[in-house]
Amino acid sequence: MCEIKTQSMKAIPQARPNVRAMAPYVPGEQPKPGEKVIKLNTNENPYPPSPKVLAAIQAMSGEALRRYPSPRADLFRETAAQVHGVTPDMILAGNGSDEILAIVLRTFISPGECLAYPDPTYSLYPVLAESGENKVVTVPWEPNWELPIDALVATGARAIFFANPNAPTGTVVSNDRIALLADRFSGLVLVDEAYVDFADGNALPLLRSHPNVIVSRTLSKGYSLAALRFGYAIAAPELVGEMMKVKDSYNCDGIAIAAATAALDDQAYARTTWRNVRIERENLHTAFSQRGYGVIPSHANFLFMTCPGGKAKETYLALKAKGILVRFFDKPGLSDKLRVTIGTPDENQALLSALPA
Amino acid sequence: MCEIKTQSMKAIPQARPNVRAMAPYVPGEQPKPGEKVIKLNTNENPYPPSPKVLAAIQAMSGEALRRYPSPRADLFRETAAQVHGVTPDMILAGNGSDEILAIVLRTFISPGECLAYPDPTYSLYPVLAESGENKVVTVPWEPNWELPIDALVATGARAIFFANPNAPTGTVVSNDRIALLADRFSGLVLVDEAYVDFADGNALPLLRSHPNVIVSRTLSKGYSLAALRFGYAIAAPELVGEMMKVKDSYNCDGIAIAAATAALDDQAYARTTWRNVRIERENLHTAFSQRGYGVIPSHANFLFMTCPGGKAKETYLALKAKGILVRFFDKPGLSDKLRVTIGTPDENQALLSALPA
Repeated sequence: MCEIKTQSMKAIPQARPNVRAMAPYVPGEQPKPGEKVIKLNTNENPYPPSPKVLAAIQAMSGEALRRYPSPRADLFRETAAQVHGVTPDMILAGNGSDEILAIVLRTFISPGECLAYPDPTYSLYPVLAESGENKVVTVPWEPNWELPIDALVATGARAIFFANPNAPTGTVVSNDRIALLADRFSGLVLVDEAYVDFADGNALPLLRSHPNVIVSRTLSKGYSLAALRFGYAIAAPELVGEMMKVKDSYNCDGIAIAAATAALDDQAYARTTWRNVRIERENLHTAFSQRGYGVIPSHANFLFMTCPGGKAKETYLALKAKGILVRFFDKPGLSDKLRVTIGTPDENQALLSALPA
Repeated sequence: MCEIKTQSMKAIPQARPNVRAMAPYVPGEQPKPGEKVIKLNTNENPYPPSPKVLAAIQAMSGEALRRYPSPRADLFRETAAQVHGVTPDMILAGNGSDEILAIVLRTFISPGECLAYPDPTYSLYPVLAESGENKVVTVPWEPNWELPIDALVATGARAIFFANPNAPTGTVVSNDRIALLADRFSGLVLVDEAYVDFADGNALPLLRSHPNVIVSRTLSKGYSLAALRFGYAIAAPELVGEMMKVKDSYNCDGIAIAAATAALDDQAYARTTWRNVRIERENLHTAFSQRGYGVIPSHANFLFMTCPGGKAKETYLALKAKGILVRFFDKPGLSDKLRVTIGTPDENQALLSALPA
């Protein structure tokens, strides 16, 4: 073993001031290998991916593995274009939609320029902005989780990001409101549709009239492929062309390209999982409401709710003791709330049975 | 199909000035699906990965796929630490060593600060620097491809990158020279060991005495896994800790983690492929020399050579017409040279037979 600390002759180079100031990343709670838990804390799809995805993965040959993948994930782009009724040059594939978000920032926002977003939303946005030395302006949601259009436009930001459906609330903003924002804002509007497969509509129809809109998608939730890290952007070809320059030359894994293509190609299978999740979402909503939880109607694959008596932390810990993980946010304004991923009917039943009285 | 260009009501937001100024990325020549070529242009290992890698991939269950992967690729870190005789906190896993290089820049070099490297070397370095608005200073190699230590130190850069063995030359710099550079330079020294598996030594012994050195590795070449996009850094725990903050939260694909771990674990298999490549490298070196090519002794899995009469482009095109791809760099100083990946004995024989007289 190297014992660098004691033998070091030389000062260790320092990271950039903005990196030094960053808190270390704390990975979400993950069960240890072999540990048996009901995992309702990170919004994975409770059903496995399509059998066609497994077949595509098992068909990977040693010959395909030793070769570089398609730099632009061409096969995936063609399939995604077909599924969404756009052209392949409107698709940018990435290593998870997290990479897509990072590429958008690196392409369009210079150091010192500003990213704006409504708060609360996906907690990765400020982390990405900090990494690029972008400024951040947050704006509170309007009552009933409506998009704060005036306040967002007034920030003078270069780009506005928001998740739709939003996390952790599960609420949606209508396309009319998004169009109004994109009309009035001269910068980029990124609609992060990580959870859109569990909702009724999506922002794709806006791309035709609003070329300052970028839609991001992921295979992690709707297509049961969180392990893959595969996401994509849908946007005007001009925007995709600039983002292509910024991405790593071979940013997508060849196995992931094959699996993601097979997943998108099997819409019938995916839609069945979405339908099942939505049925269970309504069942779970009713059951929690009956037990006194304040549940916001959700358009995603999770429920966000206020615990009776504000006892969120206690409930989280009691469930954890029984082998059920849900998400507790230990933050001001969220400390009486829990976010619960919709599981299979059996998992949801186990959750309800384990709830403290 | 959306017809954004004609229906657009709104100006398309512009990319950052540095991105607009960037040339679009031109993917390397890839055979079209079904096209049969001998591909000796992108330095892939000519042998498939270990059967244990294929077994690990095929063992991936739908249950594993629907779950998020280990955020830090823990299993891989433990295996890599064991293989290299370091501690797991000295390993940072990434989406190809390209991502490792990008993370190093984003962690340690602020916009406007400088990256230095000897020229020619891996052509990605300036692309990554441009993306982070880092300045670039290049220094020509000394005669016989020796590291230009004085000139590199004199640049006043925050970091110095170089590939060792170098691409496209295949030459190596000794650890004594690297130690001298790391002694005299107060910034970060990144030794990009993408091709090190085909060489005699490596820079890992320097980590003990020089905590300003980062070694980067890839599974793409030595372990026949270019399709996977999996690489890693080996460095002092303090440096890895800062880089962990900058990487995307789940930057590695779960299938890739399993495959990379199996690959590193089967050292015996990988070493056999390295030995075979080295034997063929010597055979090919001799054969090219006999035909009047000026071949530099290579420590990598490719040969870099000057063509008789400077006819590199002609040779490249003649080979391409016969279904054999080699790398021609249409750049000043390189236009009489070719880079040829070492193939299987059969592929190399086909290459020699196809050479223009």
